[in-house]
Amino acid sequence: MEKNKRACTLLLRLLALGATISATVVMVTSHQSSTFLNISVDAKYQYTPAFKFFVVANVIGGVYSLLTLFLPQKSMLWRLVVALDVVVTMLLTAAVSAAAAIGYVGKKGNSHTGWLPVCNQFPKFCNHVTGALALGFCGVLVYMVILLSAIHMVLNPLLL
Amino acid sequence: MEKNKRACTLLLRLLALGATISATVVMVTSHQSSTFLNISVDAKYQYTPAFKFFVVANVIGGVYSLLTLFLPQKSMLWRLVVALDVVVTMLLTAAVSAAAAIGYVGKKGNSHTGWLPVCNQFPKFCNHVTGALALGFCGVLVYMVILLSAIHMVLNPLLL
Repeated sequence: MEKNKRACTLLLRLLALGATISATVVMVTSHQSSTFLNISVDAKYQYTPAFKFFVVANVIGGVYSLLTLFLPQKSMLWRLVVALDVVVTMLLTAAVSAAAAIGYVGKKGNSHTGWLPVCNQFPKFCNHVTGALALGFCGVLVYMVILLSAIHMVLNPLLL
Repeated sequence: MEKNKRACTLLLRLLALGATISATVVMVTSHQSSTFLNISVDAKYQYTPAFKFFVVANVIGGVYSLLTLFLPQKSMLWRLVVALDVVVTMLLTAAVSAAAAIGYVGKKGNSHTGWLPVCNQFPKFCNHVTGALALGFCGVLVYMVILLSAIHMVLNPLLL
């Protein structure tokens, strides 16, 4: 029983590591050049602050997931981990949400503010960013499951 | 000791209620009309999906905070509350983050995508939205403290 729980937690943290690292890689490698009227125009994730925040948050989430994988089972630091899980989950949620809000404007534009959609000019870049957002969202979901299962495990013996 | 804890929790949830409800009110009342070349142009929160999401999330957070205030101390539902706290915290984080990302573009624009800043045309609207974002951020912080203190209270007797 105890072993099963341990295996489950490890698997979840491994999934979180995979999701955050692949979200980072897909976002960082998104790049497209287009030519309009003989002028070359670039699309890079660095041009949008929300996408930079997305990369930074996912790198932090990935490094944190990696560290928890190697934390010895008897370590005193596990006390801290649930609290840090809360902070990392909030950080990843904020990053995915901000990047998704900007991505939505990039795709649909906003006629009221006069912001035109840019995805028809940079379809490859947009697909890359969409992929990164999907992976980032998976990371958030995994961290939510980690948090809820930690709370469930800790609260159940106390309250039932 | 037990009474102090209870008072602290109630105070925090009261603060969360105040922050989420006032964030909603400030965002909903933000509205400005400007005239350019004899054409009247409106700025409303409804024109931006991220701001609508902000309002919906803060209403949900406010109602939830209110409900937890009236939950009897001995209720079996308190078991659920920590888990729901996680979900509400993530929802509020996502809402504030998305609205802030759009607000940032409204203030600074983005030269790479050709999105012009709109705040110089609607200064009153922008100040209102900034105020709502600040209040929403306070709500997120209060919920983070609620979560961390719940985890601290539950984990401490177990692990120390």
